[in-house]
Order: sequence, then C-alpha cells, then structure tokens
Amino acid sequence: MPDAVIPHGASVDVGPVDATDMPTGLLADPHPEKAAHTRSGPVPLRLLPDTAVVSPEGGLIVGGVDLQELIATVGTPAFVYDEEQLRRRCRETVQAWGRGVAYASKAFLCQAMARLAFEEGMMLDVSTEGELHVALSAGVPANSLVVHGNNKSYVELARAVEVGVARIIVDSFDEIDRLEAIASASASVKRPQVLIRVTPGIEAHTHEYVMTGQDDSKFGFGLASGAAREAASILSRSGAPLDLVGLHAHIGSQIFSLSSFDKATAVMAGFLADLTTMLDTRLGGPGSIKEICMGGGLGVAYVEGEDSPSITQWARAVRSAGALAGIPDSVRLTAEPGRAIVAAAGLTAYTVGTIKDIPGVRTYVSVDGGMSDNPRPVLYGSGYEAFLARCVTAGRPQRVTVVGKHCESGDVIVRDAQLPEDLAVGDVLVTPVTGAYGHSMASNYNKVPRPPVIFVRDGVAREVVRRESVADLLALEMPDAGPIPSR
Amino acid sequence: MPDAVIPHGASVDVGPVDATDMPTGLLADPHPEKAAHTRSGPVPLRLLPDTAVVSPEGGLIVGGVDLQELIATVGTPAFVYDEEQLRRRCRETVQAWGRGVAYASKAFLCQAMARLAFEEGMMLDVSTEGELHVALSAGVPANSLVVHGNNKSYVELARAVEVGVARIIVDSFDEIDRLEAIASASASVKRPQVLIRVTPGIEAHTHEYVMTGQDDSKFGFGLASGAAREAASILSRSGAPLDLVGLHAHIGSQIFSLSSFDKATAVMAGFLADLTTMLDTRLGGPGSIKEICMGGGLGVAYVEGEDSPSITQWARAVRSAGALAGIPDSVRLTAEPGRAIVAAAGLTAYTVGTIKDIPGVRTYVSVDGGMSDNPRPVLYGSGYEAFLARCVTAGRPQRVTVVGKHCESGDVIVRDAQLPEDLAVGDVLVTPVTGAYGHSMASNYNKVPRPPVIFVRDGVAREVVRRESVADLLALEMPDAGPIPSR
Repeated sequence: MPDAVIPHGASVDVGPVDATDMPTGLLADPHPEKAAHTRSGPVPLRLLPDTAVVSPEGGLIVGGVDLQELIATVGTPAFVYDEEQLRRRCRETVQAWGRGVAYASKAFLCQAMARLAFEEGMMLDVSTEGELHVALSAGVPANSLVVHGNNKSYVELARAVEVGVARIIVDSFDEIDRLEAIASASASVKRPQVLIRVTPGIEAHTHEYVMTGQDDSKFGFGLASGAAREAASILSRSGAPLDLVGLHAHIGSQIFSLSSFDKATAVMAGFLADLTTMLDTRLGGPGSIKEICMGGGLGVAYVEGEDSPSITQWARAVRSAGALAGIPDSVRLTAEPGRAIVAAAGLTAYTVGTIKDIPGVRTYVSVDGGMSDNPRPVLYGSGYEAFLARCVTAGRPQRVTVVGKHCESGDVIVRDAQLPEDLAVGDVLVTPVTGAYGHSMASNYNKVPRPPVIFVRDGVAREVVRRESVADLLALEMPDAGPIPSR
Repeated sequence: MPDAVIPHGASVDVGPVDATDMPTGLLADPHPEKAAHTRSGPVPLRLLPDTAVVSPEGGLIVGGVDLQELIATVGTPAFVYDEEQLRRRCRETVQAWGRGVAYASKAFLCQAMARLAFEEGMMLDVSTEGELHVALSAGVPANSLVVHGNNKSYVELARAVEVGVARIIVDSFDEIDRLEAIASASASVKRPQVLIRVTPGIEAHTHEYVMTGQDDSKFGFGLASGAAREAASILSRSGAPLDLVGLHAHIGSQIFSLSSFDKATAVMAGFLADLTTMLDTRLGGPGSIKEICMGGGLGVAYVEGEDSPSITQWARAVRSAGALAGIPDSVRLTAEPGRAIVAAAGLTAYTVGTIKDIPGVRTYVSVDGGMSDNPRPVLYGSGYEAFLARCVTAGRPQRVTVVGKHCESGDVIVRDAQLPEDLAVGDVLVTPVTGAYGHSMASNYNKVPRPPVIFVRDGVAREVVRRESVADLLALEMPDAGPIPSR
C-alpha cells in the first residue's frame, strides 16, 4: 500500500477564486511531519504557487484558473505563472529593501514580466543590449534600469548612456576606458552614474558554476588584488567623466545560508570605510558612495526538504550586518533578486508520452519538452519535484526518471521523481518551481519550438509569450543567400 | 621567450583559392612533433577546416575567404563553415557506408545544411516535427528522411506517415501503439517501414550524458530484458500494419575507440540471428530485416592530443565486425553520423571585449558570445582550442580562460586556452571544431541574439542563417494578450 496518500476528500473545495485576497500557504500540507520524512507522499504543497488550491476533483487551480482546463486549450509544454505571486514578491522586495531594489531580469524576462516588476515599484537589472531592448520595449523607463555584465560592448554601453539608464555597474578596467570615451563624447548632460562591481573573496556554498564572489571570478574588481580600490581611484580622479555613486557585490546563486551574505556585507563595509577615507581626502568632501548593492543569489527551495529564507529575512540580515559593520545610514543598502521573485511562481506543464520500465534498472517517463525548456538539471544536476495535474494531493509511491524528448541521454528533467502509481501516457505532468532560468535559457535544440508563457490571475489566463511554431524556426533562414559583398 | 613560435614567414602564400581542389591537410603543422608535446605552440593546424590556409599576413583563409575581412563585414560572434569540407565529409560517408546512410541533423541543421547533405547523396535523420519541417522546407524529399526520437508525439508520427518518410525508428511500446493506430487509419497505400531501436547494453567510454547504449537508457528496447525481441514479435504479428525492415543501435557520442562499435555490431549480429529464426518460423519465409543501422557517435578531435578514426575507418571496422559476426550481405549495414561530418568544418569567431588579469589566480578573456552559442563546455566540461584570426601560426605561450558575456560563472568557452602573448581587446578570437551542437543548442540566455551561419566556398561567403536581431527577440511577445477563452 502506498504510504502517506492523502485522500482526495482532503482537497479544498473552491468556487471562483479571488487570488488577490488569498493568503500565502492556504494550500497547507495536512501532514507536514510525515511528508518531510518520506518522498512518497504528495508533492510538498508549499512548493506550489501562492494562489494554488485543489479543485473538488483533485486538480490544481492557480490564479483562479483550472490548470487542466487551461492545458486543454493551450497545450503542452507550457510555462504557467501565478501573476499574483510575482506581484507579491515584488512588493515584498520593495518593502524589505526600499526603493531602488532591482529585479534581475536574466532569471525570467518578457515584456509582461518587465512591466509587472516596474508596476510593483522595482527597478530592473539588464545585462545586455537584448535585455535592455526588451525592458524598454515593455515601457519601463530608462531611469528604472540598471546595466550589468562582465563584457558590455561599446555599442551596449553607448546605448545605455544614450537612453539614460539609472546606473551602470562597471566590471573591468577595459569597460571603464570604454565608458569614459562614451561619456566624454556624449551630448547628454547627465553624467553616467556608476557602481563598482567588487569581488569580495567570499566563497558561497553553492554550485561551482554559479559561484561568483570568490577571487577567481570573471566578474568585477578583486578586493584582495587592490583592483577595486584602483578602479575607485580612476573613477574619482579629477576630471573623470563618470560619477562613482556606489559599490556592488554578488557572491553567487542559490545561497541558503544568510551568514554568507553577512560576511559579504561586512567585507563591503570594510571596503566602504577604506574608500571613504580615500575619496574624502581626494575630493575634499564627503564620500560619494551613496549605495551598496549586495546583488542577488538568495536560495529558493526546489524540492522536498529544502528551506530558504524569505526575501524579508534576507533584507533584515543584510541590514543588520551592515549596521553592525558600520555602514552609515546615508548609504543605501540594496539588492537585485531574480530567482527569489520568479522561481516558485512558475510551473511547467508537460504531457507524458511514453513510460518505459526497464526491470531492475529504472522506469523512464518521457514528456514533450526537456532540456530545451529546462536545462538546469543537465547544467547543474538540479533537482525538481513532479506531480500530476489531475491529482495534486495523491501519494507518489512510484519512483521514475522524467526525461525529455531530445536525442541526448542527459536530457533529464527529474532524475528521481516520485509519481502516483496510476501514472499513464497522456497525463499532464507538472514540475513546480520552474519560473527561473527555464524560459530564459530555453533553446531550439532538436528544433523543438519554445513553450508559451501564460500568466494566470483572478480566474483569467493570458498568453503573454505565445508558443513558438515550426514556421517560426525558419525566421532566420536565408534560402536565397547570395555572396556577402566584401567591405 | 615564447617557445615554439612559428615565424609568419612559414605561412603559405596563396592567391585566390580554389578550395575544391585543395587536398585535406594542406595546412600541415610544420612542427608536429613539437606541437604534440607543448600546448604553447600554435593551434594544431589539423584542427582547422580542410580548406584553411594562412594568408601572407598570417591570417586565416577558409574556403578562399579571408576570415578577418569576412568578420569586418558580418561582425561577431559568427559561425563560419567550410562548405567544401561539409560536402567532402558527406561524400566520404556515402562512399564508406553506401546509399542509405543518414546525416544526424541534430548536430547542425539549417536549410542550407539539409540541402547540402541531400545533394551529396545522404539521407537525413530528423527526430522532431521541427527537424522534419526544416528538412522538408529545404526541399529534401520525405523519402530521404529517417525519423528518430524517444518520444515522438501522435502528431509527429502522423505527419511522418502522411508525408511518407523513408523509415521510422520505433523506440517504445507506447510508440508502436501510436504508430499502428496511425497506420491503420491512414489513407496512404505505403505501409510505414520501421526499424527497432535496440539498446545493446554496451557501455561506451564517453561522458555519462552522451552514453546511450547501456541498459539504463531512455532510448530503445533493451536486449537483456527481452523488450527488443518482444517489439519484433509485435511488429511482425499477422495483420500488423507496419513493416519491420531493420534494427538500429546507437551506443553513445564522442566515441574514439572503434572496438566499442565492434562489440555493438557483434551484439546486433547475435540479435539478428535470433530474430531471423523467429521471423522465418513465424512468417514462413525469409526474415524481413534488410538493414542494421549502427547509429552515430564517432568521436571528433576537439583539442591538441586527441585523435579520431576517420569515417572511412569507422565504416570498415563496423563492416569487418559485421562480417565476422555473420551478418549476411543481404542486410545493409549503415550509420548516421552527425558530429563527424560537421564539427571540424565549423569555427566560431568572437571579438575580445575585456582582459582581466587576477594576479596569481588566472587571466579572464571575455568575448562577445558564450554559453548561448556554445553550451558544450558548461554542459559536459568540453575543451576547445583557441587562436587569433590575425596570427594563426603564432605561438600561444599565454594561458587564459576564455569566458562569455553571460551573467553566470559557468559561462566558460575554453577553461585553459593558450593564446599569443600580444592578445589584445578587439582581437578576433577563433574556436575551431565548433560546427556541431553550437548553433543547434544555441539559446537566447540573457537575451543575446544568436549568431549568423556563414558558408564559405571557392572564395565566396554566403550568410545562410542571418544574425538574430534584438527586434527578433520580441517575435513571440503578446503585448496585448487578452484572456485565453476557455474551451
């Protein structure tokens, strides 16, 4: 007998849902102590979007929209986002960190998301001309944009200066050269406001690929090497065409321990003090550093047993650490979360296409997407939960490996997924917490069209990014390409 | 003094180049014995495309086109393919394996490549509706297409049957059900010709993510479990609407040891014998198995010190193994190479944007592409060589890490690249052997537009896939998305 099966009678009976008024965690796990100890229980309900409730039939309702009905209309695979949760997380972020906090758009960017973050009071981080273009085209004003990147081109920087972005995070001496040339030549009266990206030498406990704060990093100016101090010296020299207004550090991604941020904050406080002395002496007045941005990287719980601090707890921890380390009130402590805002608000719905049981080895369950819509498992070995849209609270006694449809063995979505015993071909299989780095890293590998992005809220579903078609795959083809004329 | 520097005077002086008549390996390494022992020598010239020659100025000419001049016109990043090499490899493949051998389009697919492979006598493997669409839209007739995939949808299979593809490789019992339903309902007089994908239980010595032939695989029907035999039994039962015409095995990717193929061929020969007996008895006549496809997976040399068998050697080895194991002449032994045809014909040109020396740690060289155009390093830890377009035969005494422009530490292109001492911002940096799985796995991560694909041949460059623009990034946006009507 499968253990920890929650009878469907335990589901919450809902009529039309006003998601706006729904408290977070309504869909509380009725057996948290049991679910925590066995992975054969139902999907941990706290991993589902805020507005998720179980329908009378046992299915999932998000944003007041029945997921199975939605999928019957839009098909699979599809990214579905709880818009209310996205808005709540943005509001929580602004509340916790204050104005000036930015959404790291690389985690998930489309025009609807850019607009949403701006509407909820956030600034937006962009790190390429493409991200800048999407944000501007969505109507986000340039003075709400912060420009990042370890290798911004002359064209990208010139465009950023031309449109008048709020801040540019300078990442290298080469970039300072480039930006100074642009600023000197620019007709704009507004001097570019820059922050120095500092590599604070903190090794956050996370995957090597997403660790960015240690000395050995492609990002920023090292503290240990003196590069950060030298950058400040160059930027604040007499006649420099840029305004040095702040410092920036980003110590990595998927960080669950707030103490990593505490340490980084203390390191930055030390550098600020050092710099203030230098700048005061040099400029004969108060230091110009008005802001320290502690980057992003707050961890998100993807699977059973993981637990992450909230954005509010994160902000409090950094503020406390900042105060303790003597960062003055005149210096704004801020941040740029991405994943923490969008990951848990999104889920991906797939259709099961084949179930292949290899006796004594493993059961493979193939779905109609894969590494093209979620490369995180193959990139980082990331884990996810899975459940069936038709029976959200069903026990999941069957261990399977959920794979995609790509011609590649690494095309795994969930290596050890637990699913209900009656799993069948045609079932809609859902992976929660797929709102970050799925859509944004999606490819057309095997010429698989990319899934649509659906926002659900207050009983209404909107397709904010349409499904790519096979015809779209030919958009860049040049069937009659003639010779390229030489210069 | 940098060692192993080859003076530019050693370069080959060429006028306009007739690439067609150029023998492979013209650009032979003048110091092969030295280059093999030190990585600070010039880029191994055998890793460059067939038609590569060094210009009088020391730059690279491919397909008769000066790479630096081309890049000055088309910009970076860009994928550049030696068209003559692509054609030669296709012709070599057909010569070695005979008609019926297929190009595995997942390695690199655009209309121009599909057409090229077909023109040179190859069939094409497609594994999704998207790949099928691109091949058909390029003018490849359906009867030159072979359909693959571990999870072909009903729609995909129906389309394949409707257009009349040459063969379908069946991968699971679920798929047999689907395909039989389609074939029974189809108005087409042509019965689908199917091959059974067999998992032969061979563990090829390659990266775990690209190993596909072992028992624990999402692909195919296991031999050990009896699944493959059961599939044959179902497909050949009286009244079955499909024609079982062959067997298929693919043991993995990047396999350098021909003995792995020998083993797999022997295993398949044993299965064929077993099956022939079964089918002869059942059908009262000669077995219907006309073909055994041994898949792809032939390794390709990416970096100094790697050496791979040629397509011809591979075919010979498999044929010998087949004859030895008693595969009758009436059964065609065939294959489906992808990487072996396209990888070494392609190179990627980037522009160096920043050079960041972290004393005692590492020098980071950032280019204007990254994991969005070549995810293989971050996916598999794959290595590449790098050199500068302006000085192909220069020594490379400087060890650096070449990284991309994405906001991610894992965004590495070459972890330990050797480059010339005078490397500078603005240099065109080239990574050879990037013709496979770069374009095909490319993403828009960080909203970075995808590079163009340029074919060069006989002094002419053609942009067969144009550069994606930032405007293209908005193609799927639905700024005025209204509610999705419920069904």
